[in-house]
Amino acid sequence: MAKIAGESGRGLPAKGQFKGNVGRVMMKQEHFMKEAIRQAKKAYALDEVPIGCVIVLDDKIIARGYNRRNTDKTALAHAEIAAIKKACRAVGDWRLEGCTMYVTLEPCQMCAGAIVQSRLTEVVIGCMNPKAGCAGSILNLLEMDRFNHQVQVTRGVLEEECSVMLSQFFKDLREKKKEQKKKME
Amino acid sequence: MAKIAGESGRGLPAKGQFKGNVGRVMMKQEHFMKEAIRQAKKAYALDEVPIGCVIVLDDKIIARGYNRRNTDKTALAHAEIAAIKKACRAVGDWRLEGCTMYVTLEPCQMCAGAIVQSRLTEVVIGCMNPKAGCAGSILNLLEMDRFNHQVQVTRGVLEEECSVMLSQFFKDLREKKKEQKKKME
Repeated sequence: MAKIAGESGRGLPAKGQFKGNVGRVMMKQEHFMKEAIRQAKKAYALDEVPIGCVIVLDDKIIARGYNRRNTDKTALAHAEIAAIKKACRAVGDWRLEGCTMYVTLEPCQMCAGAIVQSRLTEVVIGCMNPKAGCAGSILNLLEMDRFNHQVQVTRGVLEEECSVMLSQFFKDLREKKKEQKKKME
Repeated sequence: MAKIAGESGRGLPAKGQFKGNVGRVMMKQEHFMKEAIRQAKKAYALDEVPIGCVIVLDDKIIARGYNRRNTDKTALAHAEIAAIKKACRAVGDWRLEGCTMYVTLEPCQMCAGAIVQSRLTEVVIGCMNPKAGCAGSILNLLEMDRFNHQVQVTRGVLEEECSVMLSQFFKDLREKKKEQKKKME
């Protein structure tokens, strides 16, 4: 297992808090998923669908991203694409081998494609997207044998928190639309 | 059929040169594919795999792109992604409805995904990529019923020219590598 970074602040908690390797991996995954959720909340604050992601190398966050599709007026402004762009800058290469992405929602076909093209080693997903996800729902682009790269995938880390955040966003949106409609009448 | 733009310079040749609608559509497709090939040659000049693309709205090129993956050190620097980014800026929206992309090589999973996410209406492809293409070879992400958008696809426009350009590039590359090896001995 790779070296565990920083023991204080937003680094990982001290060793020994969770016993055994499985507990340690789970703790690490939840730690970085919380950072991805922090990113998603930035999207929420902009009235964007709350999706966030971080990319981690050697237990350090090297890139962050959140959905800004409406704000930036481009479908390329998905959280994963923004983070991949920054991660490439951080490592100085188009290959992100050794990197792990933590993302609050199952990636779409474009982002799953970008993950494979960038040769990320691992992706950790919060909740699934049964209607459009391409990491196991509609398709599984991350683990396709016919591509020249396959990604290791973990699903369901802080699933409920990621899922509730999205449901709440769409509930808010419906209520806002109702209010606007009332004002128009 | 949409209005045909400019009759001189790099616009479309005068009406009447090709008789009938089929001839006119073919002429238009070849015209814009030539512009995509011009972009691919810019990649070639940088020792990048020669792939180029243009995006057309109302018979006018609104965005151009060519592969710069090694130069820019990111897998996001594929021709199609660069062109989509510029096209979104040109139309001021993340939706590229009504736009047609002309691309010299069948898009990969990331670019095909970006095309669907950006809701491009049509894609015209030069040559296919049997080992990695996702517009009919490995997968067909552009015409999948299960996504919320399907793209109209035309394949094989100036196919030989696009294909020969790629073969020549890889032949050059092999020769360069041989020469380097000789120098090292």
